[in-house]
Amino acid sequence: MGAEQLQAVPHLTTALTGPLLEIEERLLERETPIEQWFHERWLATPAPFYASVDLRNAGFKLAPVDTNLFPAGFNNLNPAFHPLCIQALQIAVERLCPKACRILLVPENHSRNTFYWENIGALVELLERAGYQVRVGSLLPEPAGRQSFSLSGGRTISVEPIERTGDTVTVQGYKPCFVLLNNDLSTGAPALLQGIAQPVVPATVMGWWNRLKSNHFTHYRGVAAEFGEFVQIDPWLIDPVFRRCGHIDFQKREGEDCLAENVHTVLEEVRLKYREYGITQEPFVIVKADSGTYGMGIMTVRDANDVRQLNRKQRNKMAVIKEGQTVQQVLVQEGVYTFETLGDAQTVAEPVVYMVDRFVVGGFYRVHTARGADENLNAPGMQFRPLAFADSCSCPDKKRSPDASPNRFYAYGVLGRLAALAAARELHAAMAPNP
Amino acid sequence: MGAEQLQAVPHLTTALTGPLLEIEERLLERETPIEQWFHERWLATPAPFYASVDLRNAGFKLAPVDTNLFPAGFNNLNPAFHPLCIQALQIAVERLCPKACRILLVPENHSRNTFYWENIGALVELLERAGYQVRVGSLLPEPAGRQSFSLSGGRTISVEPIERTGDTVTVQGYKPCFVLLNNDLSTGAPALLQGIAQPVVPATVMGWWNRLKSNHFTHYRGVAAEFGEFVQIDPWLIDPVFRRCGHIDFQKREGEDCLAENVHTVLEEVRLKYREYGITQEPFVIVKADSGTYGMGIMTVRDANDVRQLNRKQRNKMAVIKEGQTVQQVLVQEGVYTFETLGDAQTVAEPVVYMVDRFVVGGFYRVHTARGADENLNAPGMQFRPLAFADSCSCPDKKRSPDASPNRFYAYGVLGRLAALAAARELHAAMAPNP
Repeated sequence: MGAEQLQAVPHLTTALTGPLLEIEERLLERETPIEQWFHERWLATPAPFYASVDLRNAGFKLAPVDTNLFPAGFNNLNPAFHPLCIQALQIAVERLCPKACRILLVPENHSRNTFYWENIGALVELLERAGYQVRVGSLLPEPAGRQSFSLSGGRTISVEPIERTGDTVTVQGYKPCFVLLNNDLSTGAPALLQGIAQPVVPATVMGWWNRLKSNHFTHYRGVAAEFGEFVQIDPWLIDPVFRRCGHIDFQKREGEDCLAENVHTVLEEVRLKYREYGITQEPFVIVKADSGTYGMGIMTVRDANDVRQLNRKQRNKMAVIKEGQTVQQVLVQEGVYTFETLGDAQTVAEPVVYMVDRFVVGGFYRVHTARGADENLNAPGMQFRPLAFADSCSCPDKKRSPDASPNRFYAYGVLGRLAALAAARELHAAMAPNP
Repeated sequence: MGAEQLQAVPHLTTALTGPLLEIEERLLERETPIEQWFHERWLATPAPFYASVDLRNAGFKLAPVDTNLFPAGFNNLNPAFHPLCIQALQIAVERLCPKACRILLVPENHSRNTFYWENIGALVELLERAGYQVRVGSLLPEPAGRQSFSLSGGRTISVEPIERTGDTVTVQGYKPCFVLLNNDLSTGAPALLQGIAQPVVPATVMGWWNRLKSNHFTHYRGVAAEFGEFVQIDPWLIDPVFRRCGHIDFQKREGEDCLAENVHTVLEEVRLKYREYGITQEPFVIVKADSGTYGMGIMTVRDANDVRQLNRKQRNKMAVIKEGQTVQQVLVQEGVYTFETLGDAQTVAEPVVYMVDRFVVGGFYRVHTARGADENLNAPGMQFRPLAFADSCSCPDKKRSPDASPNRFYAYGVLGRLAALAAARELHAAMAPNP
């Protein structure tokens, strides 16, 4: 699982100013009640099978900026936390299938990214350790659906085309108890899986063909307000301001006014908050495709007028995302600075928290030298260095300062779970019968 | 929690001969099916809330010799595995109390042992981390029931006398959702807890006033046979031979014949097995009180005649165990050599595996320099050095040799769980209505 290539974070320096220390202090003070708060919420809406959450730590603010329900990157977790992951997978699988269980893992369709297949290898190994049989099945028919990948640890991953008979899917006679998606379904809910008797997790409605980031962050806003009240902090400190533009065509230059207006509104709102907290940085926004992932269709904007002056290259870059999907809706999200730096302060780092069921099972930093504190670190072809979290996210140390690493990781784990809770509510709403 | 005092095991050398390598190889080969096997068994009989299992590793044989359902020693676990422990506690508590939960932890009555209170402190901290309120309540009335202990980490543990009103117990108005026993009830089921509406875990019938080691090992024999068949090994390799003497009075020298006979039978049975496997060591047996703990009332015997020639001091030592209880029944158990040594080969080590619910959450070695490979290492006043397991028990590494440390820990985790499964069946039988 590439354990030997991983390096645990030795030391991260964060330009901590008042508010974040305050957030961390509040979380530390209320550790037991916070865990209790989560227990109650998971009872009302069960946690997603798995999730990863990108956080941004601005020193004065700590917030999720993206929640992935088909997380890749399991190969980047600290092997020291694999036992935690295995245990959590047992809980997650048991809910679907209490007895001996066969799993069909469905990866991305066209990925040739070595790291992605290392992720699939890591997931397979973790699921096997947890006591489950696993086969990897492709949504693509022969011959594209049959592939094999050699992994760094010497293991080979074989992908076989999924076959369907009536309401049952199989691969070569192997009949899974459930289908585990690690494919974000950017192009649509696959017909192959529609109406099958076996459970599909996460539900196909959570694929990017249907899911909207703006919807997720609407749910998150509710979660942040609820949690903010509970721990007595301003929800803004953990929640990025956002607006949504519903009809955009970057190539035809349609919807520019809506975009410029929303950028302006978000910048103004953030400016007011910065003033309130005495933050002297310049506000910025991130404009990104409302559905989609892989850091495609994304840009940093500092002035509303900038979005009216995009050149052809910039417009093309925004217009199309993964698997050739056209961007029609965008999210205008408050940019959260990454003030977490590694070593020379030129190297910015962005934490990603991993969850299985309701448990935080680890995380890593995306570390990038060539990017600024106001840029997105998840970009196509981006050569980030993953630095596994050195500590777990469940053992804060009250005797140390609020920004000591176990305490910071605890805060990350809380924020990651808040975003997962928003995703749980998002799923719950998506599955509710229409009124 | 004394993290800084713990030292992870650097290297243990074991005189491995054929059979154990074979056991470990079989376990490694079948990792996923073994986990599946456990999943199915835990469905039939839920795991105990928590347990610790003393193992003996003879190189040619690896077997549990004692299963404690009121485990102390949580302070000896590797802090690196606390997250695992916290997660498992959430699962264990959730089964009893799915919502916010208040716990009443009931410790031993008369312990002044600092290590014991460090254990209670560690348990309280882990439960709080898991999101539960915890108070420590004594079965003793005022003034003995009110005590406070300062722990090494600066924390103070306050013990308060339990009060009962009708079918409810409280401490100072704090009404727990359930009572968690860390008191092995050597002297009887406490009237204070009898018939209360709040669940008591483990059930009071599992206290040493009622529990018999011979009954546990009868259940274990069944488990070992079942598992032996499943992984295709001789169950003897994981199961110590035993007999039981039902009416003993060491002081009156009653029951000596029964004891001598059983010692003879066990020694003969073991001799045959040693011959079968070409083991040249001299067989020995451990005679111990059939109910009881703390390593009291225990002796090593190499010849059946020895038990007829006990001097007064030896007889006194065997006659009385914890809290002045008289020994009336004994277990005659095959002695399993401890060939696991640390460094200079003069230092013998005995692994102890800790479980919470169905999960292995860590363990440590009892390490003792002054004891032989054929002696019990859990003796009163014994100054063992706890050496926390360096690796988890859930991540064997098939690329390494079967006796590499992650693989050995995996084997320990499997054996620990087999003993916990026997305890689960023991509880199930104890709770079944009489025919």
